[in-house]
Amino acid sequence: MSQGYATPQDAEDAFYDAIDEADPEAMAEAWDTSDDIFSLLPMGLPQFGRDQVLANWQSVLGASRGLEIQVRHLHWIETREIAIHCVEERVILPNQPPGTPNPPLFATNIYRLGPNGWRLIMHQNSPPSPPPGLNRGAGPSPR
Amino acid sequence: MSQGYATPQDAEDAFYDAIDEADPEAMAEAWDTSDDIFSLLPMGLPQFGRDQVLANWQSVLGASRGLEIQVRHLHWIETREIAIHCVEERVILPNQPPGTPNPPLFATNIYRLGPNGWRLIMHQNSPPSPPPGLNRGAGPSPR
Repeated sequence: MSQGYATPQDAEDAFYDAIDEADPEAMAEAWDTSDDIFSLLPMGLPQFGRDQVLANWQSVLGASRGLEIQVRHLHWIETREIAIHCVEERVILPNQPPGTPNPPLFATNIYRLGPNGWRLIMHQNSPPSPPPGLNRGAGPSPR
Repeated sequence: MSQGYATPQDAEDAFYDAIDEADPEAMAEAWDTSDDIFSLLPMGLPQFGRDQVLANWQSVLGASRGLEIQVRHLHWIETREIAIHCVEERVILPNQPPGTPNPPLFATNIYRLGPNGWRLIMHQNSPPSPPPGLNRGAGPSPR
């Protein structure tokens, strides 16, 4: 077990690197070791506690080999102990032709500072918004 | 402007009461007054800052009169300054026949303790999971 991460961003990089590399051990390092963590992926049920969260991610990573996620930071809120990041995720599937981007997912990642540094305690992402031209809900785009 | 709420739960009650009552002023009270708040509703784009968040909710509440949300607490993480609640939301539409519940949405609500008490700083919810019998993703149900 590593000593945690120096910054929330380092923990976030480790989380997305673990997805890109489909590496369940690296994924387990990115998450906090306490049992109050949770994860919620699109159209799935929330997973609570380290056992459920890591089992869920092991299953996801097993099906995701060759998948790449491009991450863009949109917004963050930080206190001394907690960092909340809102990011845009663009999934690039293996063998996907260039120039055919998938619609973005929007994710919230929360990190906590423990005695051994920062680690992920919550990940939730939401499925793509409808294509441009359809009703995308009220309010301007952040872009 | 009120003085904030004594507990994260009081802020959460105020938030869902504002939805039940379709009351944009009560909704504005529930949210933190700083500009780092954000809100992400299913299939929509994230809304950043108090102006976007409240305009988005004003639009939602304008279309939601008579809607009721039943909330069940699933999980929480709390520090001195931040409270993270994962809840199940069941929307009951006006004139919906009894015994025909809608599938649940899962939401994360984050509250922050300011000089005037606790207020909401982030809300994100995810659309319903597929009906029972379909593949609901890995991991056991929390129920």
